[in-house]
Amino acid sequence: MEKPKSLIRLTESFAKLPGVGTKSAERMAYAILDFSEEDVKEFANALNDFKTNIHCCPICGYYIDEQDCPICSNPDRDQTTLLVVTSPKDVLAIEKSDGFHGLYHVLNGEISMAKGHTIDTLNIDALVERIKANNFKEVIIATNPTVDGETTALYIAKVLEPLSCTVTRLAYGLQMGANLDYTDQITLFHALEGRHKI
Amino acid sequence: MEKPKSLIRLTESFAKLPGVGTKSAERMAYAILDFSEEDVKEFANALNDFKTNIHCCPICGYYIDEQDCPICSNPDRDQTTLLVVTSPKDVLAIEKSDGFHGLYHVLNGEISMAKGHTIDTLNIDALVERIKANNFKEVIIATNPTVDGETTALYIAKVLEPLSCTVTRLAYGLQMGANLDYTDQITLFHALEGRHKI
Repeated sequence: MEKPKSLIRLTESFAKLPGVGTKSAERMAYAILDFSEEDVKEFANALNDFKTNIHCCPICGYYIDEQDCPICSNPDRDQTTLLVVTSPKDVLAIEKSDGFHGLYHVLNGEISMAKGHTIDTLNIDALVERIKANNFKEVIIATNPTVDGETTALYIAKVLEPLSCTVTRLAYGLQMGANLDYTDQITLFHALEGRHKI
Repeated sequence: MEKPKSLIRLTESFAKLPGVGTKSAERMAYAILDFSEEDVKEFANALNDFKTNIHCCPICGYYIDEQDCPICSNPDRDQTTLLVVTSPKDVLAIEKSDGFHGLYHVLNGEISMAKGHTIDTLNIDALVERIKANNFKEVIIATNPTVDGETTALYIAKVLEPLSCTVTRLAYGLQMGANLDYTDQITLFHALEGRHKI
């Protein structure tokens, strides 16, 4: 016997989401039956609105759904520090840490030999132009602590060398709540190297 | 800094789904950005259509989105056997097993002391009427093998006693792929009791 067509359609849409298999997708579809009619309409509208409204800030590259980017247009933020990240999601992660109050620059990727991503696919020219046009004292490179992230960080540091700003990189070390026993040797090496007085 | 409003809205909708926390919901929302515009529209339409179109067959109680129930209106199905289940999802599970080709009756719940579900909340009167009006030879009770499911099965068996049909219950026994070692004693007891020649 065939399943109801509208169930199959909705299940297929849910199954396209990351980490959702056919079984979970079907469970989600059934759960929609328990939603109120308003909730379902709101869900459908939220989907359409999100896709239509969200775009990248032309200056920093962060996701915005208004005319002005809440970060770039905020005069209270430190205008002399620029933090360079790989993707717009990283901006959110750093904002949540509440440890940075300057401006951002999203690269939209990393240099990757394996994936064939070269420097041309990244937002590096705009970064250089932006640093030249503004008065940044420090540029913090916050690419991922992976081979690709490191390569990208080193490349950017080299490109920015002739400019007058200081280029820094996020600290490596133990993760909060981690077990020394289970920490890999490279992280431990960096944690030892970066030790500080308490 | 605040997240984009349309991201918050969509995250809230995803977080209402079963087994989806705020973190996964946000990841799903971001994934929507990688969907094509058609896919997002299809997703939103599928949501609305599913909620609007799906209803329960007035005869068996299974979810349908057409005028006629594909099970009740199928003359090729065995019209003399009726299988009683707790919810419409159970119909799908049994159909997948391909072991039953008769008709269904959905109770929409189980008698539950804990949840305060009494016989009045279940679709039992309609079941009795349906059996009286039709020529069912066998009624298979396929409620869940739990305390509530058993209570419901016993109650239905008692109600159907005066009628001429045979009332049966699904077999208890070992689950396929299970480990004898890890099987609970009640299941083992039933498996022994229900042993058959090979």
